[in-house]
Amino acid sequence: MKAINPQALHAAQERQSQLTKPMGSLGRLEDIAIWFAGRSGNAIPKRLQAAICVFAADHGVAAEGVSAFPAEVTAQMVTNFMHGGAAISVLARENQISLSIVDVGVKSDYPTPSNSVHGKLFRSPVCAGTANLRVTAAMSEAQMHKAWQIGVGSAMHGAELGKNLLIGGEMGIANTTSAAALICALTDAAPEDIVGLGTGIQATAHAHKIQVVKDALQRARAAGAVSAHDWLREVGGLEIAALAGFYTAAAEAGIPVLLDGFITTAAALVAVRANPAVGDWLLASHASQEQGHRRALAALDLTPVLDLGLRLGEASGAALALPIIQSALTLHREMATFTEAGVAAGAM
Amino acid sequence: MKAINPQALHAAQERQSQLTKPMGSLGRLEDIAIWFAGRSGNAIPKRLQAAICVFAADHGVAAEGVSAFPAEVTAQMVTNFMHGGAAISVLARENQISLSIVDVGVKSDYPTPSNSVHGKLFRSPVCAGTANLRVTAAMSEAQMHKAWQIGVGSAMHGAELGKNLLIGGEMGIANTTSAAALICALTDAAPEDIVGLGTGIQATAHAHKIQVVKDALQRARAAGAVSAHDWLREVGGLEIAALAGFYTAAAEAGIPVLLDGFITTAAALVAVRANPAVGDWLLASHASQEQGHRRALAALDLTPVLDLGLRLGEASGAALALPIIQSALTLHREMATFTEAGVAAGAM
Repeated sequence: MKAINPQALHAAQERQSQLTKPMGSLGRLEDIAIWFAGRSGNAIPKRLQAAICVFAADHGVAAEGVSAFPAEVTAQMVTNFMHGGAAISVLARENQISLSIVDVGVKSDYPTPSNSVHGKLFRSPVCAGTANLRVTAAMSEAQMHKAWQIGVGSAMHGAELGKNLLIGGEMGIANTTSAAALICALTDAAPEDIVGLGTGIQATAHAHKIQVVKDALQRARAAGAVSAHDWLREVGGLEIAALAGFYTAAAEAGIPVLLDGFITTAAALVAVRANPAVGDWLLASHASQEQGHRRALAALDLTPVLDLGLRLGEASGAALALPIIQSALTLHREMATFTEAGVAAGAM
Repeated sequence: MKAINPQALHAAQERQSQLTKPMGSLGRLEDIAIWFAGRSGNAIPKRLQAAICVFAADHGVAAEGVSAFPAEVTAQMVTNFMHGGAAISVLARENQISLSIVDVGVKSDYPTPSNSVHGKLFRSPVCAGTANLRVTAAMSEAQMHKAWQIGVGSAMHGAELGKNLLIGGEMGIANTTSAAALICALTDAAPEDIVGLGTGIQATAHAHKIQVVKDALQRARAAGAVSAHDWLREVGGLEIAALAGFYTAAAEAGIPVLLDGFITTAAALVAVRANPAVGDWLLASHASQEQGHRRALAALDLTPVLDLGLRLGEASGAALALPIIQSALTLHREMATFTEAGVAAGAM
């Protein structure tokens, strides 16, 4: 795992104190610039070239009625991504981020779109979605490993393209159920505190969703789940496994990661529990409206940049936060120092 | 004063419910798109063309030692703005916003820079800064009126250039003292709750700053200050008067305003107290680290988009929030509807 460069980090701190502003007056932006300096090994980090990979897969647990949308929507949204009509399509264009869609297990059929200006599709399903995690392990060990490796490959592809910020996103009807189960298992939180409304279910469906998660946790414990990998196999998802592999490979390559919302944070939790050094490479873009996200972020010791009441996924929160992060780095790079500008420093 | 268009607002709400996402899942971004629809009179508002005007002026109260920086820094920072080295210079470039610097009363001399790629300078000082508000009225009625009209002119200039979002910023050593006094006067808050650390003063200077504000409020009350204009004249600043005029003229022209931090919010409070309809045209970009900003925003019934611990001014928080707001409008404009994308709507 690549290590943080303390010299670059310290030099960036020093530079922040010399820029023409009261010390600390750029708040979180100063921390972000220093954070990237430590990771890039450069006191003045370069402009970010970000890549988004949205991993899509279906979930057997959708059969339990835990989502307000039918399972077919996963495939329909993949088509929507490729046609440029989804939220992440718009945000990737708006903020000039490359977009790839990786099918790691979409169940319903969908026409293969021609690669468009809106993004590239990598169609590599491991299987037709997971099994119903309430009644059996979501994946086999081999399926989980395959999905994880697809994520690793996506990160390595980003590295080859010279990307210096990797953003994972996801699409998978019912995946908040899987993510909630993982977060409960890996943080010892109660399902009542973590299971949220997902796409917008009503109270009765919410109570049922909590019960589904409780049943899944009980089943997986009885089946002997202990490690993060065990829990991923038992109650995770193919796109969550891919994300965990994606984050781990990014950290190994020394490429910072910008997390999105509830699902990606659950995947990050798996990656960090499996290898704590991955945590050094994670930045949280936003606090989701989904109940339990803040708890998962806290477990990773991460503070979100934005808090806009989002609960969409797809990497939308990360894409929205990118301009803020880019601005933090540009300020660090381009602001004049007190000496350069002939401005009197304060008596602080 | 231009009125909000309820038809456009309602049509935008309707459109948000048809876009390919769970209803409400874009949180604050949905509210922002609907807000702009009502103001633009267009259910699908156009891309924002934003202009920043940074009003700069000096404050006699700087002689009281209420800032960590000497008063000369106001002029030095005007030069820094024009050379492109200040935070707002960088952010205006990064986020493609036009930048004008308007000198409404900078005391120290500075060389007139040639107009550069970094911004335009409008050098129109009303006088060499305000008087010390602790001991006398900050401005005469005529000076206040003149500064206000310069702000009006800046907004009208923006309207002529086809700008559909106006952002005010400020530079003026000691202006948090003036802004705090205004906020106390107009919200009946105690100076202890509003006066903050400004550029980063220590505890002793902070206690002194609170006393200065108390003295100013007592003096102005004794002088018969009642209306928002009275308070502006007594304890305001030239750049704050210009900002209040700028916001009022923007609202009259039906151009939305994106507020920055503590000082601009104090100016907005003056404008809204003088004419409550101005409030309909204000959007809050961020919550400043400066104590009292949240209280001032609450008095205007505004919820900030960002919360990044900033306390710099110059319009920096507004410039940072612009990409988020632009993204909210682009999502509203460009996302596919469920029908267009052939995506099944949820059972919500």
